[in-house]
Amino acid sequence: MIAIDWGTSSFRAYRLDASGAVLERRSAVAGLLACGGRFEDVLVREVAGWGDPVIVMAGMIGSRSGWREVPYVACPAGVDEVAAGVCEIDVAQLPGRRVLIAPGVVHHGAGRPPEVMRGEETQLLGLIDGLGAGRHTLCLPGTHSKWVQVEGGRIVTLRTAMTGELYALLRKQSLLAALMPAGADDDADDAGAFERGVLASATDGGLANHLFGVRTQGLFGTLAAAAAPSYLSGLLIGHELRALSPTAPAQVHLIGGLALQQRYGRALLQLGASVQAHGEELAARGLHRLALAHGLAA
Amino acid sequence: MIAIDWGTSSFRAYRLDASGAVLERRSAVAGLLACGGRFEDVLVREVAGWGDPVIVMAGMIGSRSGWREVPYVACPAGVDEVAAGVCEIDVAQLPGRRVLIAPGVVHHGAGRPPEVMRGEETQLLGLIDGLGAGRHTLCLPGTHSKWVQVEGGRIVTLRTAMTGELYALLRKQSLLAALMPAGADDDADDAGAFERGVLASATDGGLANHLFGVRTQGLFGTLAAAAAPSYLSGLLIGHELRALSPTAPAQVHLIGGLALQQRYGRALLQLGASVQAHGEELAARGLHRLALAHGLAA
Repeated sequence: MIAIDWGTSSFRAYRLDASGAVLERRSAVAGLLACGGRFEDVLVREVAGWGDPVIVMAGMIGSRSGWREVPYVACPAGVDEVAAGVCEIDVAQLPGRRVLIAPGVVHHGAGRPPEVMRGEETQLLGLIDGLGAGRHTLCLPGTHSKWVQVEGGRIVTLRTAMTGELYALLRKQSLLAALMPAGADDDADDAGAFERGVLASATDGGLANHLFGVRTQGLFGTLAAAAAPSYLSGLLIGHELRALSPTAPAQVHLIGGLALQQRYGRALLQLGASVQAHGEELAARGLHRLALAHGLAA
Repeated sequence: MIAIDWGTSSFRAYRLDASGAVLERRSAVAGLLACGGRFEDVLVREVAGWGDPVIVMAGMIGSRSGWREVPYVACPAGVDEVAAGVCEIDVAQLPGRRVLIAPGVVHHGAGRPPEVMRGEETQLLGLIDGLGAGRHTLCLPGTHSKWVQVEGGRIVTLRTAMTGELYALLRKQSLLAALMPAGADDDADDAGAFERGVLASATDGGLANHLFGVRTQGLFGTLAAAAAPSYLSGLLIGHELRALSPTAPAQVHLIGGLALQQRYGRALLQLGASVQAHGEELAARGLHRLALAHGLAA
């Protein structure tokens, strides 16, 4: 089968064997924004040469601005619930093959706005079987970080933090941006500035106040321009963790790219939590699990 | 005398009589950014026809990127301390006249970055005499809101919140911006969306989480696009107030423009505080007080 993680700005495809192991992988500059609505043409082009009979896709391709809007599945949601929400579409240019789009997941919490994800749930489903009994906390850092509680093989709560987006806005477009080197490597060694930012997030005053400290410390020479991005990142991630990371059990499963895993891992350790890191290819595994549950894979 | 409030993006001049009453006022598109460093030429042009012997200026004109950097005066700071930090400059094109730049104020709190202001202190000094004994809380909402505690006629603490800047970034440049009408009047009647935002700021999850609620409520049709800016504003102001507004005494003096005073006033009342509003011409009055203390006015 073919598993595809198709997001707003990214397209990743995996060819899997019957056990779900990855045989081949492809990625393309073919996120939703780059498709101009020609999703069928893009899909046909990107899977050219892969003749597998089943194609399962997940991500924003199933959103209102994607190929077909697939309704969210409500928490608690495990493999069976998500598989039941999968939507099959006809693709004229791929006759005789089954093409499916997975739904996203929604969590309706009392007295608060709904929380949603599309795409990240496939990574969770790829990990969920191996977690064992009890309640587990999973974090997927990113532009919009996701915090998930899993229990009995099902996603039971979901929270989002727009931390990565706030970082990008403040790093590139705010008055603070003028204090930071343009185009520098924000992951460069920062001589503890990241940890200082995490620490500062614990003081009173709130995020909007703490952000101003980036400016005044630059003004008074106690924060070097090159270290300011790391300090800012520490502030924002510190606020996210203090608001969304559970205190007990203080173990967090981190899923995602290496650079962000390292940042979140450092901050979690600083706050006394323990961390277990997982790679990004969980998405292919989760899509294979969905195909199995849907009766489409061996 | 002439009192001038000269900021990064604004220039406001007042001609005062001996009692400090405003005789005439001028404003110009002559903020620091519009001056190209030609401060003397701009000053001469903007006070043309006003022959008063004393000119007192405050604001970013006294910063590193202004005409002359005037060192900050440390808290506790009242009229006398700020007057002692005033810097006199020679202006060749204004012979026989005394031209002064007021310093800003810095608060060094233990275990946290310094807090600074330049310009706002003149408004505080214009109000401070009338406050009476005890401790008072003053708030100047804006791009960078200032929260000040005053006691015995002196500024004793200072906090800044980058609330207005965060609002502008999120309103114009974030993924949330796509959900809001472009160019709409954000102060339009919002059918309670602002208050809902203030209320949502009290839930757990933190600011970066609450911001995502703007998106999901739009997605699920529970927040109209036209009401989203007010909700966003309520969220951000709610977070600021919960972090920086004192709970007792729960009276806050609000200083600034009408639109922001109304927003902050509504939010403060919603949180159970009482509000006293003051106008913006306090700056002229504060600069007159400084001139008096400096022995330059009757």
